[in-house]
Amino acid sequence: MAAVEASNKQVVLRDYVEGFPRESDLLVTTGTVRLSVPEGSNAVLVKNLYLSCDPYMRNRMSKLVGSYIESFKPGSPIAGYGVCKVIDSGHPNFKKGDLVWGITGWEEYSLITAPETFFKIKHTDVPLSYYTGLLGMPGMTAYAGFFKVCSPKKGETVFVSAASGAVGQLVGQFAKSTGCYVVGSAGSKEKVELLKNKFKFDDAFNYKEEPDLDAALKRYFPDGIDIYFENVGGKMLDAVLLNMKMHGRIAVCGMVSQYNLKQPEGIHNLFQIVVKRIRMEGFLVFEYYPQYPEYLEMVLPLIREGKIVYVEDIAEGLTSGPAALVGLFSGKNVGKQVVAVARE
Amino acid sequence: MAAVEASNKQVVLRDYVEGFPRESDLLVTTGTVRLSVPEGSNAVLVKNLYLSCDPYMRNRMSKLVGSYIESFKPGSPIAGYGVCKVIDSGHPNFKKGDLVWGITGWEEYSLITAPETFFKIKHTDVPLSYYTGLLGMPGMTAYAGFFKVCSPKKGETVFVSAASGAVGQLVGQFAKSTGCYVVGSAGSKEKVELLKNKFKFDDAFNYKEEPDLDAALKRYFPDGIDIYFENVGGKMLDAVLLNMKMHGRIAVCGMVSQYNLKQPEGIHNLFQIVVKRIRMEGFLVFEYYPQYPEYLEMVLPLIREGKIVYVEDIAEGLTSGPAALVGLFSGKNVGKQVVAVARE
Repeated sequence: MAAVEASNKQVVLRDYVEGFPRESDLLVTTGTVRLSVPEGSNAVLVKNLYLSCDPYMRNRMSKLVGSYIESFKPGSPIAGYGVCKVIDSGHPNFKKGDLVWGITGWEEYSLITAPETFFKIKHTDVPLSYYTGLLGMPGMTAYAGFFKVCSPKKGETVFVSAASGAVGQLVGQFAKSTGCYVVGSAGSKEKVELLKNKFKFDDAFNYKEEPDLDAALKRYFPDGIDIYFENVGGKMLDAVLLNMKMHGRIAVCGMVSQYNLKQPEGIHNLFQIVVKRIRMEGFLVFEYYPQYPEYLEMVLPLIREGKIVYVEDIAEGLTSGPAALVGLFSGKNVGKQVVAVARE
Repeated sequence: MAAVEASNKQVVLRDYVEGFPRESDLLVTTGTVRLSVPEGSNAVLVKNLYLSCDPYMRNRMSKLVGSYIESFKPGSPIAGYGVCKVIDSGHPNFKKGDLVWGITGWEEYSLITAPETFFKIKHTDVPLSYYTGLLGMPGMTAYAGFFKVCSPKKGETVFVSAASGAVGQLVGQFAKSTGCYVVGSAGSKEKVELLKNKFKFDDAFNYKEEPDLDAALKRYFPDGIDIYFENVGGKMLDAVLLNMKMHGRIAVCGMVSQYNLKQPEGIHNLFQIVVKRIRMEGFLVFEYYPQYPEYLEMVLPLIREGKIVYVEDIAEGLTSGPAALVGLFSGKNVGKQVVAVARE
């Protein structure tokens, strides 16, 4: 019996990127795909439903040497987290019809050769797209970074940068639920409104309207910051260091302001680490995935009770993918940027 | 009965210092002192025997605002750790003849108004001057920073900067006794020899002869660094960040290369904190003083058995104090810099 073939739209990286990525760095092409797994293989063939646009993906567009991730391959489709439906499976743990999330290709169909790295989706009474965000990698990132790295205590002050993004909006809400005072920064009036009115941050500001970030932080944290959830790096980090409290903690999740620079900005206020006895710790979500069930147990009831909200910015169709991904680096998205490839 | 008076030589700060301190920033003068404590006071009058020259003292020469320490007062004697003999006491815990160590004035006699902060010296079978170093603040600093902040494990790789100094030489020896591989950097051939031959570091290099610190570190740590004991900051820290291993730890003790700069150098490689999941933590020895008895219990037997060695650079007489202190910042001292004011 001849295998069924289908056309397969793909988003391909033209060449390694330097500086700010442009839409033209990505190419939408159409190939074909066999809709079954090769005989005898352990692979799984999936239909991609939702694709996640995440800041770390910028790093994979560069020619990387010895990083924690690999470069995308010029001429091949890029990859990222996605929500997928199993079409065919050669793996005992997965069967046709299963919904899963994990790292998949930016294309309509993908052959997954290491399906062990995928999570099965068991709860479908919440939007499926949430598994690219609140219930996926960014959710686990917020959970691990805030609770596990920062050990927050009730009454502490928390600052979150890139606060309306996929991770930041959750850190803020987790901080509120812990009884912390939380302020977020974002890059537009609209996002600041979102932080204050939708995510219930205690306060928020537009960093683009603050010529003096140190002064801004002193305004919002007259007694200093206990916990900084670091998403941006650069000048914001330097200003935060001047405003940390004694024994403050900085969870370093990312430094998106630096990803498009050839030479990262210099940080000048690191001696504050001694003065204030600060702990600054980098973390990667992969190491916390064994705690995903524990996270789901905490967060699913909160979602169902409406105690946690999540804002997504959904781009329709794979063809809109390049613009959606690139837009992340100029802050075009409001909330978690998702690309809807197909609605099942 | 009239109180006995004595002449009292003092080292006085002329004015706040900017940039590299010079001998002429300090003035040796002679006043008088009453050799008894005021009636009804809790104070203690001490004769200063040994004074400690420590890098952090540079910060107190500047006009500081909101730091963890206070500026020295222009026109008054500077202060620092010292070993002293009690001449008169109004405090129930101290009596004439007691040997103590703590923060005292740079002068022949000092009236200590908060003697509670002093430690009594109970073991005098070791050189008294050691209580400014190995058995004093620098010793506790090495102990707390290495064992408590870095949680070292046998077989790990350790890098120490300013390794022949008061703290560094101990960190290296503690690392060896833990079964670690340890390399130190210092600023002269003589110091490098000391590290290798006297303190038994596995290896050592002269950072002034290394145009490319990253390359030097890759030579000594082809598989990377687990623990960095940070004493210097600046370019060395930036190079170390590129060479840390996964889950590496950086104990930030000081950043002496930065203390004389108006604007600290920028650190560009901080994103490595995420890539390698590094924990970077500042600490101050004060918070660990409750563990001083535990430290003595560990270190005294090692000294007596000759399993730990300590090199001091002793300047004779208070008049030599300004040159000794200022010399610290050009690396003139070989080993722990002490000023011997009187030998009991």
